[in-house]
Amino acid sequence: MSLYKNFQFSIEATSGGARAGILKTPHGDVHTPAFIFCATKAATRVATPQVLREEGTEIILANTYHLMLQPTADVVEQQGGLQQFTGWRGPMLTDSGGFQIFSMGHGHVADEIKGRRTGKNEKSLLKITEDGATFRSYVDGRKITLTPEDAMDIQRKLGADLVVVLDECTPFNVDKAYTQKSLYMTNRWAKRCLTHFEKNDTGKQALYGIVQGGIYEDLRKESVEFLNGENFFAHAIGGSLGQNREQMYDVVRFTAQYLRKDRPVHLLGIGGIRDIWEHASQGIDTFDCVHPTRLARHGGALTVNNKERINLPNARYRNDSRPIDEHCTCYTCRNFSRSYLHHLVRTGEPLAHSLLSIHNIHFMNTLMRTVRQSILENTFEETKKEWLQRLEEPVGEK
Amino acid sequence: MSLYKNFQFSIEATSGGARAGILKTPHGDVHTPAFIFCATKAATRVATPQVLREEGTEIILANTYHLMLQPTADVVEQQGGLQQFTGWRGPMLTDSGGFQIFSMGHGHVADEIKGRRTGKNEKSLLKITEDGATFRSYVDGRKITLTPEDAMDIQRKLGADLVVVLDECTPFNVDKAYTQKSLYMTNRWAKRCLTHFEKNDTGKQALYGIVQGGIYEDLRKESVEFLNGENFFAHAIGGSLGQNREQMYDVVRFTAQYLRKDRPVHLLGIGGIRDIWEHASQGIDTFDCVHPTRLARHGGALTVNNKERINLPNARYRNDSRPIDEHCTCYTCRNFSRSYLHHLVRTGEPLAHSLLSIHNIHFMNTLMRTVRQSILENTFEETKKEWLQRLEEPVGEK
Repeated sequence: MSLYKNFQFSIEATSGGARAGILKTPHGDVHTPAFIFCATKAATRVATPQVLREEGTEIILANTYHLMLQPTADVVEQQGGLQQFTGWRGPMLTDSGGFQIFSMGHGHVADEIKGRRTGKNEKSLLKITEDGATFRSYVDGRKITLTPEDAMDIQRKLGADLVVVLDECTPFNVDKAYTQKSLYMTNRWAKRCLTHFEKNDTGKQALYGIVQGGIYEDLRKESVEFLNGENFFAHAIGGSLGQNREQMYDVVRFTAQYLRKDRPVHLLGIGGIRDIWEHASQGIDTFDCVHPTRLARHGGALTVNNKERINLPNARYRNDSRPIDEHCTCYTCRNFSRSYLHHLVRTGEPLAHSLLSIHNIHFMNTLMRTVRQSILENTFEETKKEWLQRLEEPVGEK
Repeated sequence: MSLYKNFQFSIEATSGGARAGILKTPHGDVHTPAFIFCATKAATRVATPQVLREEGTEIILANTYHLMLQPTADVVEQQGGLQQFTGWRGPMLTDSGGFQIFSMGHGHVADEIKGRRTGKNEKSLLKITEDGATFRSYVDGRKITLTPEDAMDIQRKLGADLVVVLDECTPFNVDKAYTQKSLYMTNRWAKRCLTHFEKNDTGKQALYGIVQGGIYEDLRKESVEFLNGENFFAHAIGGSLGQNREQMYDVVRFTAQYLRKDRPVHLLGIGGIRDIWEHASQGIDTFDCVHPTRLARHGGALTVNNKERINLPNARYRNDSRPIDEHCTCYTCRNFSRSYLHHLVRTGEPLAHSLLSIHNIHFMNTLMRTVRQSILENTFEETKKEWLQRLEEPVGEK
């Protein structure tokens, strides 16, 4: 275990199935359960590192797929790695690039994986072989093959603390036979990643293995048992989680139960308020999702009601002098009215995007601190119940 | 003069024709020469009030034309006025709405007024009569007449400290006869504005008269003599300043010489680095221009060279680890490389716009403090000469 000597995950408390921990990295600590904000192309769209910090953020992630194409891993390495490049000096995770390769290949994989069919197929994914995945760059049209070893080398150059194995991310609409075959290749890729990672270890990174197996409990169990026996620092749950919320809760539940308890568990791409409460109770330690920052771009502010948001473009906010949330202490809620935000969104002022991002980032960090605190105080179940009740309230009543 | 009892303009020092002053308003002091940033639709596009302050801003302006259409002056008034609405608690100016009415009417007035011909004519300006200007709203197609009295009432509701009379902003491509006829109507409008302003005075606003007269010295002189005799708090130089930089310097020079020295003088719509040094030497106290924030949107950072900027999308910055300006102390230059900014601009990340705005705002405020300091130390001419020399250096040498 000396592979991860500069990293540590310790569990401070549990409450039911939920756990509060500390994930130590060379760039600082992450208090879990935690939300990891997406800085897809090495920027969280509009929030500066200062804003991220001020609003309580401890960790962000960037996407290897985008960065390997532009500005390239070599440029990021020459610029001192992602933390130097982006000015974010805290803990950081990169994914393997796999998700986007398969996403662009299968049309919108976010839709596919979540079971929503779309007609799109960009065909940028050219082939998947035992060697790796070949795709066409959306930047310059070049044909690129990404092998498990490449994924490790590229992430080493990018320099995030937490890195992830290359996996085939199977969409919803494949059958069990394909899912199983794919899982076995993903496992072989995971071994290759680990071997390559160990060979070039610098002590500055820790490796996540990814659970695949789609919606099939036996395959998920098989995947987990494989990962539990390998020298990964942590695990991430990926792949299709089914067609709806109920199925997702079910898939994560039967997957998480088999995972070793001494390693952190990340759930890829999930970030709804209800979802976080549910999955925290299943033992998930970290989450990521573009939702909070993407919602901001579309004029939405996270709030606790049955839509999990209010939509500022709505005419009802035109002359509403209240902040988004009277109890929120974010910069936006301390300084600006719904009326002003409505005006900014309506006139297309980019400040709307910034101010709503600030609120949504603050909201997610506050939510995670609430979840964590309730675990530490062993009041998780009551607090969860109370939140789920508040999440039944219609928007109109606010 | 009790009309402006809550306002004051005092000249602390002069150096050649340049002057350093303090403009006191109910929302705070402005140290002149100063640059007024454009918060066109009640937002400087991406900069929060906190960022504006941190980077040294003392005053911003908003455009009556846009705000009267959306969110409307009534909403702004009901929300407590612009300073409450926007969260900018410092000094603020609104224009009369005239510039945009004529701008939209004559095609792009910014081009027209500066003597650049364009083929565009949106025809939103329906008619100009002695009563006022009638135009079509770009928001909902409504026909709206703006009279001088309306311009005062609307600006009263918006609530900025400094407000401006309604004038006809004559474009470059009109003859002297039209310019003269227009000037006389502008003067009658100015009197109506002043009468209406005095009648409804609340002590919270101060009124600017606008000098018109195009490129004709005798008309500019006549305009100034009229304004000097009326009870305005300050003067702004508007209208066409000619076809090129030399003509502009000439028009402002022969206009400014006639203006009373005890009132602040604003130059509308000008904000180049050379221009500020030249016009400061002619006695201009405040400037405004969309340039610094608009340039940021297009990937440009203000720097001292013969282009007055560097363009971050340029491939030469791809792997350049230096900040925009090694001597700059703005948040962007303290934290980010040209390489990162290049990446953000190339990938269309909106954070590029924010970070470049921060630099450009800081740059303009630093420039204005340098101008001011050199006046206080009576080294204006040498400092100006030195800056104009640095402005000869080609970008490539940087």
